[in-house]
Amino acid sequence: MKRFRNGEIWGFEAQAPRGPADGVVLGVDGGTTSTVCVCLPAAGPLPDPLPILSRAVGGCSNHNSVGENAARETLEEVMAQALSKACYSRKAVRAVCLAVSGVNHPTDQQRILDWLRDIFPNSVKFYVENDSVAAMASGTMGKLHGCVLIAGTGTIAYGFTEDGKEARAAGAGPVLGDWGSGYGIAAQALTAVMRAHDGRGPQTKLTKSILDMLELPSPDELIGWTYADPSWARIAALVPIVVSTAEDGDEVANRILYDSVQELADSIIAVVRRLRLCGEDGKEAFPLVMVGGVLEANKRWDIGKEVVNYVSKIFPGFLPIRPKLEPAVGAALVAWNRSMRELKDAQEADSPRISVLQ
Amino acid sequence: MKRFRNGEIWGFEAQAPRGPADGVVLGVDGGTTSTVCVCLPAAGPLPDPLPILSRAVGGCSNHNSVGENAARETLEEVMAQALSKACYSRKAVRAVCLAVSGVNHPTDQQRILDWLRDIFPNSVKFYVENDSVAAMASGTMGKLHGCVLIAGTGTIAYGFTEDGKEARAAGAGPVLGDWGSGYGIAAQALTAVMRAHDGRGPQTKLTKSILDMLELPSPDELIGWTYADPSWARIAALVPIVVSTAEDGDEVANRILYDSVQELADSIIAVVRRLRLCGEDGKEAFPLVMVGGVLEANKRWDIGKEVVNYVSKIFPGFLPIRPKLEPAVGAALVAWNRSMRELKDAQEADSPRISVLQ
Repeated sequence: MKRFRNGEIWGFEAQAPRGPADGVVLGVDGGTTSTVCVCLPAAGPLPDPLPILSRAVGGCSNHNSVGENAARETLEEVMAQALSKACYSRKAVRAVCLAVSGVNHPTDQQRILDWLRDIFPNSVKFYVENDSVAAMASGTMGKLHGCVLIAGTGTIAYGFTEDGKEARAAGAGPVLGDWGSGYGIAAQALTAVMRAHDGRGPQTKLTKSILDMLELPSPDELIGWTYADPSWARIAALVPIVVSTAEDGDEVANRILYDSVQELADSIIAVVRRLRLCGEDGKEAFPLVMVGGVLEANKRWDIGKEVVNYVSKIFPGFLPIRPKLEPAVGAALVAWNRSMRELKDAQEADSPRISVLQ
Repeated sequence: MKRFRNGEIWGFEAQAPRGPADGVVLGVDGGTTSTVCVCLPAAGPLPDPLPILSRAVGGCSNHNSVGENAARETLEEVMAQALSKACYSRKAVRAVCLAVSGVNHPTDQQRILDWLRDIFPNSVKFYVENDSVAAMASGTMGKLHGCVLIAGTGTIAYGFTEDGKEARAAGAGPVLGDWGSGYGIAAQALTAVMRAHDGRGPQTKLTKSILDMLELPSPDELIGWTYADPSWARIAALVPIVVSTAEDGDEVANRILYDSVQELADSIIAVVRRLRLCGEDGKEAFPLVMVGGVLEANKRWDIGKEVVNYVSKIFPGFLPIRPKLEPAVGAALVAWNRSMRELKDAQEADSPRISVLQ
């Protein structure tokens, strides 16, 4: 366990108490736009409302977007801040669930696990997952069963069966065709402006609305603006203007949004079919947790509602859930559930021996 | 004029002669994959074959792809190398035509001009243009009239009228929808592999061919591979495997290539219409210069030939030209033409005065 980095990040621990006897758990939701860490007590039962001990916020922690070092720095900082705000040191931590966008492969998980082990005491349990796990758990009080659709800067659909099978669709980033994401919607809107300007596509009100918003004099300047900063979140921030232009009756903007609905619905359908979450007859009930800025209601154009309409024609039994808890709390509940399960397993492992002895 | 940078780039000049009395011109073709500089004598007539004094090659000089500092370094290095190989110093240079991919706006031109003035003597004439100028000129011995289609890592269509009007289409990079480019074709192929893997798209032989080529065990690893290196040229290098998979009868790969043909043809059509290069009746003759790896012939699938077939149905009078000279020589010919024109203008400005005196 390293004590300090630049003498700063963990410096507060010199004054922090060890924490409660039962300890705490940390849940981290690492996204392409922001990263949130919350701290919960490690032992139950958990009352309603949840006793959130602290909350910390940082920037992007998707290593595909900002690189591995910047991503790790953000993750370490939010965890340290959450503990510092709760006035506990790392010795109080029982379990950490790190649910991070861009974790797509066992090798990604392993690299983060190795790095976490260097930061925390040996006894801490780690759960390193894709950020879809945090989103799913935020709609199901930590239970991983059903399907989750995230549509923010990026998009991914993830599914979990009760017996531990998982499947995913999309979540491969902008180069690999996540066209339903906020980035995808905005990039298509920018493309439509360039095409109209070139004479390769229909005229669209997006030209005026996007140029006005960015305070640029002509579409030619969009090229420089686009490549001046490689952040995906910066492009995705144009989604509200695409939605309002569609609400204003623009055909091109409407086409882009309908295409995104189709893309997002296709991702859900692919995951549900692969895991047979809808049962053999296609009508069984399963939760569909929906999170992310793209799915939030606008005045008239509501992408999330359109996705629900589309999917309900195929799987009439699904239960759409818009979580009231934030994903980071979902991650903390995963850490809490697994920590409690291990505690219970350990107790059960002891019990038979005791009963034999009796 | 700076004498040295890191004591290296222009260090050779201490031994280099001043050069021929009439001087030399430099032509630079700056692309996203590579950058080429050639050196020609500044005064004519130019014999056939052209007396190319030297040639130097560097990496990417598109500032949108590698950033401004790296792009400038590459440009400065290829110019210094070309002069060093020809054994001349910068004092021999009469004119430089820098035709660089990513130069999309007067502010891009101005930044490069300011920087060039710091490198070369005051008397040198500069022409800073988009790389399409070099490509056009390579097919027309330096004359800027007609349309040029470039389809390499990126794509752009550019047109020039005899009275100096210009128009362009595409050339806005991968984020802004250059789907006919090498990058665009390859990104669509990678997307098709991910969709097939997710169950969101049809199965395709691209999966096996691309994974075999990249020596990756599964499509899941493609995400890490894609974002490990942001170079557009690295993605575009997959085009030959997409073409061979299409030749092997794969429907998905064929659809991607037909779409790219349509995209490339649409760019040409937009430019020709805006400049009325085809005349009022749409049948007038004009040159269409076609360059770039994407347009080169494959065994059976020839993207360039399909583009010609498509465009000829709309503009029966166009003359497709596959240049024998490389674009950098085209850039040098632009520098040579303009340098000769200024010389002629200067002589003509003197002549009337002389005739009045006679």
